[in-house]
Amino acid sequence: MTSLQLSAKEEMVEKFLDAAARGDVSQVSTLLSHAPSLINKTGFSGWTALMLAARNGHHHVAEKLLSLGCDRFTLNSSSQTAYDVAKFWGHRHIASLLSRSADGCERILLGPELGPQENYFSRETLDRLSWRRTDQVWLESKRSDPDTVYLLFSNLSPMVSTSQEDNTERQEDFTLCRFRYEDVKDLLQKPSTVMIFLGIEKVKNPPSSSQTVESVSEPPVWFAVNTDEDAAALLKRCREKNCLFPRSPNRDLLKLSEEEAGIVAQARSVLAWHSRYSFCPTCGSSTRPEEGGYKRSCLNSECRSLQGVHNTCYPRVDPVVIMLVIHPDGNQCLLGRKKEFPAGMFSCLAGFVEPGETLEEAVRREVEEESGVKVGPVRYVSCQPWPMPSNLMIGCLAVAMSTDIKVDENEIEEARWFPRQQVIDSLFRGARPAFVFPPRQTIAHQLIRHWICMNSNL
Amino acid sequence: MTSLQLSAKEEMVEKFLDAAARGDVSQVSTLLSHAPSLINKTGFSGWTALMLAARNGHHHVAEKLLSLGCDRFTLNSSSQTAYDVAKFWGHRHIASLLSRSADGCERILLGPELGPQENYFSRETLDRLSWRRTDQVWLESKRSDPDTVYLLFSNLSPMVSTSQEDNTERQEDFTLCRFRYEDVKDLLQKPSTVMIFLGIEKVKNPPSSSQTVESVSEPPVWFAVNTDEDAAALLKRCREKNCLFPRSPNRDLLKLSEEEAGIVAQARSVLAWHSRYSFCPTCGSSTRPEEGGYKRSCLNSECRSLQGVHNTCYPRVDPVVIMLVIHPDGNQCLLGRKKEFPAGMFSCLAGFVEPGETLEEAVRREVEEESGVKVGPVRYVSCQPWPMPSNLMIGCLAVAMSTDIKVDENEIEEARWFPRQQVIDSLFRGARPAFVFPPRQTIAHQLIRHWICMNSNL
Repeated sequence: MTSLQLSAKEEMVEKFLDAAARGDVSQVSTLLSHAPSLINKTGFSGWTALMLAARNGHHHVAEKLLSLGCDRFTLNSSSQTAYDVAKFWGHRHIASLLSRSADGCERILLGPELGPQENYFSRETLDRLSWRRTDQVWLESKRSDPDTVYLLFSNLSPMVSTSQEDNTERQEDFTLCRFRYEDVKDLLQKPSTVMIFLGIEKVKNPPSSSQTVESVSEPPVWFAVNTDEDAAALLKRCREKNCLFPRSPNRDLLKLSEEEAGIVAQARSVLAWHSRYSFCPTCGSSTRPEEGGYKRSCLNSECRSLQGVHNTCYPRVDPVVIMLVIHPDGNQCLLGRKKEFPAGMFSCLAGFVEPGETLEEAVRREVEEESGVKVGPVRYVSCQPWPMPSNLMIGCLAVAMSTDIKVDENEIEEARWFPRQQVIDSLFRGARPAFVFPPRQTIAHQLIRHWICMNSNL
Repeated sequence: MTSLQLSAKEEMVEKFLDAAARGDVSQVSTLLSHAPSLINKTGFSGWTALMLAARNGHHHVAEKLLSLGCDRFTLNSSSQTAYDVAKFWGHRHIASLLSRSADGCERILLGPELGPQENYFSRETLDRLSWRRTDQVWLESKRSDPDTVYLLFSNLSPMVSTSQEDNTERQEDFTLCRFRYEDVKDLLQKPSTVMIFLGIEKVKNPPSSSQTVESVSEPPVWFAVNTDEDAAALLKRCREKNCLFPRSPNRDLLKLSEEEAGIVAQARSVLAWHSRYSFCPTCGSSTRPEEGGYKRSCLNSECRSLQGVHNTCYPRVDPVVIMLVIHPDGNQCLLGRKKEFPAGMFSCLAGFVEPGETLEEAVRREVEEESGVKVGPVRYVSCQPWPMPSNLMIGCLAVAMSTDIKVDENEIEEARWFPRQQVIDSLFRGARPAFVFPPRQTIAHQLIRHWICMNSNL
């Protein structure tokens, strides 16, 4: 195409936008029948024909554009949709036309692909090497290997060192304390100690196939150990300064590096399972750990749990849906707060997936139970292990089909629709924001960011 | 635009495709610099410029097109990609160029949005009304309500009636037997009987807000009851003919309607939990059901499980990843078979999500463990409750980063790459297919169909 043709095209866009702004529905139709691709074209400041019609109150033009499939969720350079424009200028009949959600609401969920999201607690630093769990001889030899790394847990908290002695709020100021076999071998003898095989360090450059397995030294193996020894005495075993067992996992485990957080997610979930599941749920007898800490078997030889494979013998993972619900206008989101949240904090709604339920149904049920809002389309975004003690947070965006809020006061204290601009202000610009979100390490925070980035002009 | 311009455009497409077919890289470049949108245009039989270059061995043209971002995964009307064409005509250097997967492989996962997928066991026929579970008075009144529906389970199998007396293979020939309070009230008295509140029937047209709650009669409540009474005696309680308790849930529960399958998914998962978790895993004491069958509390008043909220008291849901792995060429998929599968059956790989693991990592780990194939991008498609006893199957597509197969013989017997055309033949055209897939009620089947439909010309 020549540059002359291109500028003829630009001229046609101007003509089309002008017709929409003037309310000339017949010229809008004619131009679209010749060139359907005009429909979502933008002019000055990112305004579409729909926005111009909405600005000037031309209901017929808006109706025509919608019937031909125009995108009602486009944002102009001030982050406004056509709905926002209609509302601001008081054209209620157009605002109401634009907020009807039956058709096209799935579109709200379809932003550009933003690439995979890595959440905190999600990085796999170790190769779990699960097939080694049943290899007693290998595991035994690795226990006393001088390269093997041990992490020590007390009451399900890992021993960490901190570089700081004051209580500043800097992130990532905890580092896991690493022990060798010689440091912990007495603890490993005690019957109350639980030991988990975590895996081996991932090799960045795997050996070429010409080298035999024997000729290459294996990367270090990692174990996690939980003991009921006195915590103060345990701290004395460490050579590093400023060691401690964090007391508030929900807050303190967020201060690790991404790599160490991933390891703690695995270790703490499995250790928590051992701490609560030391008796057989099927017959009430004692059980003993097996397979590197990934199984517990009943000691009662008559027990039904020993016939066949049963989930009673394996660690639990509890799926939880956590969702950012988007208003049918595409420009507000639903956030709630629990009584126990810090002042001013709002977050995504969430709840456990029930037996016999899909993720999408769980999203709909939880949102309606907690806020009274009905939800239509649901879209998976990303997930996050949350080792408190063993949740898998499954993050979704969802589109509301109703907007009246009625909170279940047993679950949450308040729920509100937050306009996109207010969310952006709090997230990116707020020196003193009117409300706050959970920290960046949470999937709730990441879901909110994801939505903002999906169709913003930032 | 006038029709004259349109045909000028068509002429330009022809000119462009012809240049690619002739190997005229300079004309291909010139045309694309004027009209970048030409790059993925198709001519006769859906052939793209890339396919024509691949057909005639024009490596430079293929390289040029790829460098400008052309879509390597487009299919022509014979369901071939450019890679297939290059391979068929023996242009190995072009085939190798097209199979390089580092860039653009995410594209394999991005088909058109196919709308939400409803899997078997996924329909929510009842409103779970979870807030009623703690309302003892209401639950008690509903127990004896003449409208209340009871389902009877024996050994975790629901009583069903079948319209047929022979063993034909027609699907959906089981119907749940429904009982009234008078039919089962003696069973409800027995201590070994477990009763679950399933919910109330969903109202298609909810009452208008002007009617008060009292003036509208509530829809029927449903309960599921598992009893250890003799199965033959239980069958005699039913007025219907041809009643039975199916013996192979994996096979027989697939014969219900979509509506009843959804109810059974919920009921069987929760009943299975009661059957295996009647003792407290934390202290080994007995427990008792509470909250409509959605909780079990320890009878030992000293037990730690009574302080705070613990997952030991609630039913398990075990997340499983199940994935269709796609070859880097976009045109083959990886399927495996277990020893216990029927002859000729292949299915998607699958495995339990481990503690501290994301869904995406679980997909990568399981595929590499079972088949030796390394996986890159992963995309969630849909999920399915699978009440055997309480799995949540989370279905994904994934793209392979390596193609050599080395099966873990403990897990699977064989794994193979299946060309798309072979899969299509088996799925849609096979009178006597070379291999078979699991039935349509499984998410494995639906994932395979999903992939076929994503970018086929069918």
